[in-house]
Amino acid sequence: MRRAHRIAAITKRLVERPHHVFGVGEFADLFDVARSTLSEDLAIIRATFEALNMGKIETISGAVGGVRYLPLLTKEHILGHVEDICARLRDPQRILPGGFVYIDDLISSPELLRTVGSIFATAFGEQAPEYVVTVETAGIPVASKVAYALDVPLVIVRRQSRPTEGPVLTMNFLSGSARQLETMSLSRRALPRGSRVLLIDDFMKAGGTLRGLTDLMGEFECSVVGKGVLIESAWPEEKLIDDHLPLIYLDAVDVKEQKVVVRPADWILS
Amino acid sequence: MRRAHRIAAITKRLVERPHHVFGVGEFADLFDVARSTLSEDLAIIRATFEALNMGKIETISGAVGGVRYLPLLTKEHILGHVEDICARLRDPQRILPGGFVYIDDLISSPELLRTVGSIFATAFGEQAPEYVVTVETAGIPVASKVAYALDVPLVIVRRQSRPTEGPVLTMNFLSGSARQLETMSLSRRALPRGSRVLLIDDFMKAGGTLRGLTDLMGEFECSVVGKGVLIESAWPEEKLIDDHLPLIYLDAVDVKEQKVVVRPADWILS
Repeated sequence: MRRAHRIAAITKRLVERPHHVFGVGEFADLFDVARSTLSEDLAIIRATFEALNMGKIETISGAVGGVRYLPLLTKEHILGHVEDICARLRDPQRILPGGFVYIDDLISSPELLRTVGSIFATAFGEQAPEYVVTVETAGIPVASKVAYALDVPLVIVRRQSRPTEGPVLTMNFLSGSARQLETMSLSRRALPRGSRVLLIDDFMKAGGTLRGLTDLMGEFECSVVGKGVLIESAWPEEKLIDDHLPLIYLDAVDVKEQKVVVRPADWILS
Repeated sequence: MRRAHRIAAITKRLVERPHHVFGVGEFADLFDVARSTLSEDLAIIRATFEALNMGKIETISGAVGGVRYLPLLTKEHILGHVEDICARLRDPQRILPGGFVYIDDLISSPELLRTVGSIFATAFGEQAPEYVVTVETAGIPVASKVAYALDVPLVIVRRQSRPTEGPVLTMNFLSGSARQLETMSLSRRALPRGSRVLLIDDFMKAGGTLRGLTDLMGEFECSVVGKGVLIESAWPEEKLIDDHLPLIYLDAVDVKEQKVVVRPADWILS
């Protein structure tokens, strides 16, 4: 196989499995070429991705040697994507009875989810989470793409436990907005003790769910290395957590004027 | 940019968004090269993917012209992947109190989910589904990857509706295994009338859920073009549907002998 062919094959392998470390030897064996030749191939892919802001090809040196693709986005790209989502959120047809905003179509779009996955992978990749944790239901598609972008398993906390989970740890928590006592439970098998976890959810009001998830992680003796939410609403003013990373602020839903007021989060604008 | 660089960039774009049709003009503009040059680049990528069984690069002819990457797997690859999953399922440590089998770790693995997504995309891609539909909760990560592999939105049917969904259609259905009356509901906005939908779930016993989903799709005047399940259990013997595609049969869970008896579905072996 000539260089152009090898580059097509290597790029495919790297891109379809972000964050995963491939041994350089794997590729050398596949194409039956010298490691020095492969290093040149990888240098071309790396330079191309860098020139076109397509993420990063990272070479890991050492006895074995490895290479991986990181779906990192630039600040400008993140802002562009988040502005796009904001523009779609401003559509007045999203306003539902009761002043809610319909977002299910957004969090069902494969392209939007991939982008959001890359944004959170960019924001939290250096914290090296070993698991992405979310609570059912609407957060799952988002968390699933973050887990994919980071090449780590997705753990789903249930509202109600099921017999197919085996022994579970169940915890009550106070939902911040509704001031209601709610329940979450997670299989004892789902998380090894001492794991580094990233919490992801689609929507945050007071932060009661993320607060509860954080406490639950404590029960599993896991450390929370980050908390990401797609949309944070301005109300209630008092939040139960303050170290989370939202992508979008929902400032107001004006039912009378038929306006959804949203903007990119401060860290994206700065 | 030289050919090797262009091939790295084009491969990246195509692979990170399976099934999506890219205009050849998009790439020609990006690199400022003639269409004939790009056609040669694409021919190299196509030949490489074909030689290495890495899926298919499909060129769509016509006035505009387009190209897309289809994550198609060969019969041998599908069998290999399914055998791998079976081997993991046979681990006796998966047996839970009550004779259930723990599978949450499998359906949380990003690499396994990507593979399963590609298998169902291979099986159902020609039916050209416009939506992938599943019911919360455990089916979501699987369905999410199928939707991604097909570049179509994922629609999640709820057990209980939420105010953030707007007006919903709620339906009762009889779960086949527990013989219980259960409820599913879906936002009126979630599916346009007349859509072609693919149903995906992680686990099927009698098929009551898939039967219910099919009926619900009828209420939305959508046509079901396929039904895929990751694992189908041998019991109960009487099934409520018969036109579904499982990947794995769970024949028995022997609590006494500590054995999980699984095998690839017939269509994979044939």
